[in-house]
Amino acid sequence: MTRTVYVIGIGAGNPEHLTLQAVAAMNRVDVFFTIDKGAVNGGATADLAGLRADLLARHVTSPHRVVTAPEVPRDRDPAAYVATATEWQARRAALYAEMIEHELADGGTGGFLVWGDPSLYDGTLNLLHGIAEQGQKLEIVSIPGISSVAALAAAHGLILNRVGTPILITTGRRLADGGMPRDVDDVVVMLDGRTAFAGLADTDLDIYWGAYLGTPDEILVSGDLHEVEDEIQSCRTEARARKGWIMDTYLLRRRR
Amino acid sequence: MTRTVYVIGIGAGNPEHLTLQAVAAMNRVDVFFTIDKGAVNGGATADLAGLRADLLARHVTSPHRVVTAPEVPRDRDPAAYVATATEWQARRAALYAEMIEHELADGGTGGFLVWGDPSLYDGTLNLLHGIAEQGQKLEIVSIPGISSVAALAAAHGLILNRVGTPILITTGRRLADGGMPRDVDDVVVMLDGRTAFAGLADTDLDIYWGAYLGTPDEILVSGDLHEVEDEIQSCRTEARARKGWIMDTYLLRRRR
Repeated sequence: MTRTVYVIGIGAGNPEHLTLQAVAAMNRVDVFFTIDKGAVNGGATADLAGLRADLLARHVTSPHRVVTAPEVPRDRDPAAYVATATEWQARRAALYAEMIEHELADGGTGGFLVWGDPSLYDGTLNLLHGIAEQGQKLEIVSIPGISSVAALAAAHGLILNRVGTPILITTGRRLADGGMPRDVDDVVVMLDGRTAFAGLADTDLDIYWGAYLGTPDEILVSGDLHEVEDEIQSCRTEARARKGWIMDTYLLRRRR
Repeated sequence: MTRTVYVIGIGAGNPEHLTLQAVAAMNRVDVFFTIDKGAVNGGATADLAGLRADLLARHVTSPHRVVTAPEVPRDRDPAAYVATATEWQARRAALYAEMIEHELADGGTGGFLVWGDPSLYDGTLNLLHGIAEQGQKLEIVSIPGISSVAALAAAHGLILNRVGTPILITTGRRLADGGMPRDVDDVVVMLDGRTAFAGLADTDLDIYWGAYLGTPDEILVSGDLHEVEDEIQSCRTEARARKGWIMDTYLLRRRR
C-alpha cells in the first residue's frame, strides 16, 4: 500500500505564519518525522525544535506520534561543495527511507515540518522523491509556506521587484564567488554564513537585512550597504554569541 | 492621528493558503478597500471578488465595512511600458489616498487583500508608501502570503533551486525580450500574457506550468518544453475561453 508523506512549510519563524492548509494537513498526519541536529548548530536545534513542538501542541488535535532520528554528520565547509552535499543527501535519504519504512504503517500518513517554504533551499522533497524512485510506494504532497524571502520583504514593508524587473534569489557562496550580477538589480541572498555582502565593492547598493525573521528576536537593518555593513556585522556577531545561532537573509538593491 | 493600513497576502487562489497571521490581521481591520476591475479582465473580477468575499465571510468575525472604488483605466500593451506603468501607479495612488482619507476614520485600521504575496509583482505597498511620503500619516503593515511561485512549486512537488544554485523570478516580457539567461538554470516566469515560452529555441529546457493554482480549476502540465508547449497553448486557449480569464505561471529548468 501507498504511504502518504506531507512536506509542510511552517513559515520563517513566526508561529502565525502557518497556513490553514498546513494546519489541516498536520491534523491528517499519523507520524511526524524530525531530525535531531544535536549540538551541530549551537542552540538552533533547541529553539527550532521548541517552535515545532509548540505548533504541534497548539494546532494538532488528532492522535499522532513524533519520531526523531539523529542528524547525518556533515562537513559544513568542504572544498568540493556539490559532491559533498550530494553524498550527504544520499545518506540522509537512506535515513529517511528507514524511518518511513519502520515507523509508518502501510497506508499511513507521515509529515515533515520544514522551515519556510519546501520549495526554497530545503532538500526534503528531493530526498523523498529519491526514495520513491528507489521503489518505496510514496505519495508526496508539498504544502507551501511563508519563506524567509517573503518574511524579509514583509518585515521591511518591501516589494522585491521594481516595475517589470526580475529578482534573483541566490546563496552567500554564489555572491562571494561572482559578486553582484550586472543584469539584475534586486538580489535576495540566503544561506550566507560568512557575510558575503561585506566583500562587495559596489557603491550603488542598498541592503535590507533581517535575522530571526518573524520571531520576537527579529533584527532589521537597512540602508546604503557601505554605511550599514559594520552595524550588520556587529549585530550578527552579538546576536549569534547571545543565542548560539543565527538565521539571516537580505536583499541587495541597486539604486537607480 | 495615524491610520494603520494592512496589506494582506491571501495566497494564490486556495482559500486555505490564508495564514493565521492574515486571519488575525483581517479581524483588526475596520475598512477593507477593494478595486472593482469591472469588465477589464473578463470574468476574473467576479471570480476573484467572490473568493475575497468568501474569505471575509468565513474568517472575519469583527465588525467591518468594504469600500469599493472603480479601477483606474490602463493601457495594457503600451509601447513605453515603464512610463505608462508609472503614470498609472500615480493615478491609482491618488485614488487610494482619497479612499483612505474619506472612508477610514483617524486612528482606524484599513486593509487591502492582495493575491499571492504583497512583495511579488503587486504594487499596493509602493502605492501606500507613496501616499505616506506625500504627507498622509499611515502605518503600513505587510502580511506575507503564499505566492503563486510557492503554489506552483508545491503543485508540482518541486524544489525551485538545485544544490547551491540561484533562481531567477522574471516576467514574460523580459523572457520574450532577452531569452533564457545563460547563467541561471531555473527561471520562474510570471505575468506572461503572451506565452513567451513558446518562442524559445533552447532545446535543453523542461517546463513546469500551472494555471489557476490552488483552485478547483488548477491545470498542471510539465515536460520537455518543445514536447509540451502545444499542449500548454491549447490548455491555455481553451481554459481562457471557458472562464473568461487565465492566471498562470511557470518554471523553466535547464536540464543538466
